[in-house]
Amino acid sequence: MRVENIVACSYVSSNAKSFEGVEAATGNKLDGVFTVATEAEVDNALTSATTAFSTYKNISGHKKATFLREIAKQINIIGEQLVNRAVQESGLPLGRIQGELGRTTGQLNMFADLLAEGSWVDAVIDTAQLDRKPLPKSDIRRMLIPIGPVVVFGASNFPLAFSVAGGDTASALAAGCPVVVKAHPAHPGTSALVGEAIVNAAKSTGMPGGIFSLLYDDSYAVGSALVKHALTKAVTFTGSYKGGMALVKLAQERHEPIPVFAEMGSINPVLLLPAALDESAEAIANKYAVSITLGAGQFCTNPGLLIGVKSASLDVFKTALAAAIEQVAPATMLTKGICENYHNLSTQVLNEDGVSVLAESKLTNELANQSTAKVVEVSAAKFLSNPKLQEEIFGPYSLLVIADDEQQRLEVVKSLEGQLTVTLMAGGNELESYTELLSALQNITGRIILNGVPTGVEVCAAMQHGGPFPATNDSRFTSVGSTAVYRFVRPFAWQDWVNALLPDELKDGNPLNIWRKVDNTYTKD
Amino acid sequence: MRVENIVACSYVSSNAKSFEGVEAATGNKLDGVFTVATEAEVDNALTSATTAFSTYKNISGHKKATFLREIAKQINIIGEQLVNRAVQESGLPLGRIQGELGRTTGQLNMFADLLAEGSWVDAVIDTAQLDRKPLPKSDIRRMLIPIGPVVVFGASNFPLAFSVAGGDTASALAAGCPVVVKAHPAHPGTSALVGEAIVNAAKSTGMPGGIFSLLYDDSYAVGSALVKHALTKAVTFTGSYKGGMALVKLAQERHEPIPVFAEMGSINPVLLLPAALDESAEAIANKYAVSITLGAGQFCTNPGLLIGVKSASLDVFKTALAAAIEQVAPATMLTKGICENYHNLSTQVLNEDGVSVLAESKLTNELANQSTAKVVEVSAAKFLSNPKLQEEIFGPYSLLVIADDEQQRLEVVKSLEGQLTVTLMAGGNELESYTELLSALQNITGRIILNGVPTGVEVCAAMQHGGPFPATNDSRFTSVGSTAVYRFVRPFAWQDWVNALLPDELKDGNPLNIWRKVDNTYTKD
Repeated sequence: MRVENIVACSYVSSNAKSFEGVEAATGNKLDGVFTVATEAEVDNALTSATTAFSTYKNISGHKKATFLREIAKQINIIGEQLVNRAVQESGLPLGRIQGELGRTTGQLNMFADLLAEGSWVDAVIDTAQLDRKPLPKSDIRRMLIPIGPVVVFGASNFPLAFSVAGGDTASALAAGCPVVVKAHPAHPGTSALVGEAIVNAAKSTGMPGGIFSLLYDDSYAVGSALVKHALTKAVTFTGSYKGGMALVKLAQERHEPIPVFAEMGSINPVLLLPAALDESAEAIANKYAVSITLGAGQFCTNPGLLIGVKSASLDVFKTALAAAIEQVAPATMLTKGICENYHNLSTQVLNEDGVSVLAESKLTNELANQSTAKVVEVSAAKFLSNPKLQEEIFGPYSLLVIADDEQQRLEVVKSLEGQLTVTLMAGGNELESYTELLSALQNITGRIILNGVPTGVEVCAAMQHGGPFPATNDSRFTSVGSTAVYRFVRPFAWQDWVNALLPDELKDGNPLNIWRKVDNTYTKD
Repeated sequence: MRVENIVACSYVSSNAKSFEGVEAATGNKLDGVFTVATEAEVDNALTSATTAFSTYKNISGHKKATFLREIAKQINIIGEQLVNRAVQESGLPLGRIQGELGRTTGQLNMFADLLAEGSWVDAVIDTAQLDRKPLPKSDIRRMLIPIGPVVVFGASNFPLAFSVAGGDTASALAAGCPVVVKAHPAHPGTSALVGEAIVNAAKSTGMPGGIFSLLYDDSYAVGSALVKHALTKAVTFTGSYKGGMALVKLAQERHEPIPVFAEMGSINPVLLLPAALDESAEAIANKYAVSITLGAGQFCTNPGLLIGVKSASLDVFKTALAAAIEQVAPATMLTKGICENYHNLSTQVLNEDGVSVLAESKLTNELANQSTAKVVEVSAAKFLSNPKLQEEIFGPYSLLVIADDEQQRLEVVKSLEGQLTVTLMAGGNELESYTELLSALQNITGRIILNGVPTGVEVCAAMQHGGPFPATNDSRFTSVGSTAVYRFVRPFAWQDWVNALLPDELKDGNPLNIWRKVDNTYTKD
C-alpha cells in the first residue's frame, strides 16, 4: 500500500520515490510504502498553513481545546493498532509504548485544559490616565499571540510523545499555530496512523485544512526545505547534537531569522555524595542500573555520567552496579544506525586514556539491533584532560568518574558543558554543605533532582526540559510541560483600542474570567 | 582629561588610542579624551562579570531593587551636568533630554518596583503525589533565573534612556545579570557621567564589582570582541538594520548560540481611514507634522509611511500637512554621519519612479548637522512595485502612499515588512468594517495604535516594543516596559528538593508573598 503525504489535511499523490518501514527487532520490511514529499508539497503545506493561520489564530481557546481533545480521542480509537505498529517500528517494549500513548493523549488534554482556563496568554492592561502631566497616558493592553506556521521534526526515540501528535505539535496547536510535521523515517507507519487521527479531528471540529500537514522523507531534502521556507516561523527538533545544529545552521542562512528549538540531549551527570553512598550504596546502584538501561538507554535524560569520590562506600556501589549491569537483558534499539553507532562509540571509548570497563551485560539473544548495557570508569584527572569523554553515547551506557576528593569533584562539575538535568544523591543533611557545588551546578543545567533518577520526565507546569548549550540551543524554553506553549507566541499590544474590537482576553469586564495584570496588580476583576 | 574605561567598577588605564566627543550643533570638540578599550579589558570585563554573577544571581530582589534605585538617585545628583552634556553631544533639545532623564530614572525605579513585588519570576509549583499510579509524582518547582553577563550597546538616539543606564541595562540588572556596556561614540561624555553614577551606586550598596563595566570605542573592534566573547550570554542593541544584523551575524559565528536582541527600527505605517479624514483632515495633518519631525525624526517609531485612499478629504490632509511641514524649523541631528545619510537618502528617494515632493521645510539656520523636514508621495501602484521604498530613512521624513481604493490599500498593507507599530486614524465606527485589514496588520507589527501617534513609547507593563523582522530580529521580546526583563532569564526546575535550600520564591509557605501557580492554580498561599 502506497502511503501519501498529507498536505492541508488532504492526501496528495505523486510519483516521487518512496521508502518502507522496518521492524526494529528483525530488520524485516513492514507494510506500507511511504512517498517522499516533493518540493511542491513542501511549498503547498506552508502556503496552506499560512492561509489557515489567518483563521485559526482567531478561533477561541475553547474551540482549540475541543480540537486537541478530539485528537486525543481519535488516537485512543486506534490505540491498539497504533501501539502494535509503534512497537514493531521502534523495538520499544509494549508497556513502554502503552505508557507513551497515555503520555501523548495526556499532553493533548493538558494543553486543552490550559486553553480552557485561558490565563496562559499573560494578559496585561495598563489603563489610561488622561489627566497625567506633562502628557496623558494611553490605554495599553497586551497579550501573547501565535507566531505562525511551525515545522515539527518527529523524534526517533518517542514515536508517539515527540512525533506527529507529540508535545511539540500539541503545544504549537495550543498556541494557535498551524503545524507541518516532518515524520521520522524510523516510524513512518506510526506517523501515518497518528496523521490520520489528526486529520479526522480537524475535520470533525471544523478546523481549517492548512492547520496540519505530514510529510515523509528518508533523507534530508524535505527537512531542509521546510526550515528554509520563507513562511516557516519556528522549528522544533528532538534528537542528536549533529542533527539539531544542522537545523540551526540552515535557519541562520534564512533572510528572516526564526527560532529553532533543538533539544539535543545530554549526559545528565549524577553526583554520588558520600553520606548517600554510606547509607545505601547498593540501593543506589540498583536504581541506577535500571535508569541507565531503561528503554535501551535511549532517553535524552539517560544518566551517562556518574561522579563519585574515592571511598569504601563507592567501592560497594561499584560492585553492586557491576553485578546489576551484568544481568541486564539486551534490548532492541530504535534503528540499525543507532545500534551500530552505540556499539562503535561504546567500544571506541575504551581507547581513550585511562578508561576501563566496570561492567558489561553478560546476556545475549538472537534478535537484530540489540544493545549491550555497559558502564566504564575513569579517574577525574583523566576526565578533566579529555573533553571527548563528555560526548553523549546514546544507549544503555554510563561513565563513572572517580575524583580523589571533593575539590577535584568540584573541578569536574565546573568543566561540564550544558545539561538537561543534574541529579544529586545525598544522605542526611550533607546537601547543605555543598553550597559552592550547587551554585556551579545551576550554571550548567535546566533541572536539578534530589535522590531520584533523571529518566522519566514529568509532564506538568513546573517541568523544565531544556538546558544550557549544547543540551539545547536555547535554554530559555522547555519542550516538555505546559509552558512549552511559550515557544510559539509573541506579545502584541493594542493602544487606545475600541473595547468591542479587542480580543476577549483583554476586554473590559474580563468576559473570560482569566487572571490578568491590571495596572500592575494580578486580578480576575 | 583622559577618560578611562571602567572594568568591574574600577577605572583602568592603558596607552590605547583615544577619541573625543563632538558637539552636534557645531562640530566642535568637547572636553575629554576617551580611551578605546583593549582586548585585555574586554576579556577582564567579561571574566569579572562571570565571577560577579555567582554572587549577584543569589542576591535578593529587595537588595537588587535598592541598587537600581540608588543608580537613579546617583543620576539625579548629577542631573544638570548630565543633561547639559547630553544636549551638547546629541544636539537634542533641552526639554527632550530632561524628559529622557526622567524616563531613565523612571525605568530604573519601575524595575525596582517589579523586583520588590517579586511575582515576575513566574514561580510554578507542582506538589508531589506519592500515591499516584502507576508511578508516584515528584515535587517539581520552577522559576526564572538570570542567564549571565549581558553586553549592552548604547544607542545614538537615546543618550540616556537607551544607553549606559537605559532600559537594557536596567532590565538586565533587574534580571540578575551583570552588564558590560559598549558606550556609543556619539555621546562618550554622557556615558562617562552615567557610568560613574552606576559605579557609585554599586559601591554604596555593596554590589560585586564585576556587575558593571563600561568600554569605549569609536570603531567596531570592541563591540565585535564583546559579542564573540565566550562568557557573553546575551546582547542588546538599538539602532540601524545594518548594525543590528552585523551583531546577529557575529553571534552566529560563536560556538555557543546566544540571544541577540536587535531593535532595528521601522517605518511605522499610519493608515488614514476615510471617515477620520472626513471628520478632521487638518487636525490629523497637524498632529502628524509634529510626530514626523519630533526629535528631528530620530525615533524608531517615527511615522515614515502614511497610507491613504484618494479622496477630497485626503487632498485637504495633503494641503494641511504640506503647509505645516514647510514651517518646521531645522533641528540638529545626532551626528554628522546621520545627518549626511539623511540628506542623501531623502534626496535619492526622489530618483525612484513616481516619487515626488509633497512638502519640504522652507526654514534654514546656520548650525551644523541640520535636518530639513520632508514629506514625499507616491502612488500605491508604484510603491507595490518598488520594495526599496519600504527602507527606513532615519530623520524628519515620511512617505505618503496613495491608493486608488481600499482593495489596493489592503495590498499595500500585505506587502509590508515587519514593523514596531502600525497606527490607524479612524472616525465614527469605520474601524469595525476593516476586519481583513486588521487581521493582516496583526501579522506585520508588535503594536497597533488607534487615533494617536507612534512616537512617544509609554514605559509600562503592557508595552510591546518589538515587532516582526526586520523591525527586530526576535519579535518575541520587548526592549521597552517591565517585561523587557524576560529577555535575560531562563526557567530552572528543582525536583524533590529540600525546602530550606530552595530559593525563597519557591519555599513552602510563600515567605515572599508573591503570586505563584501551585498545582495549576494562581495563588498567594
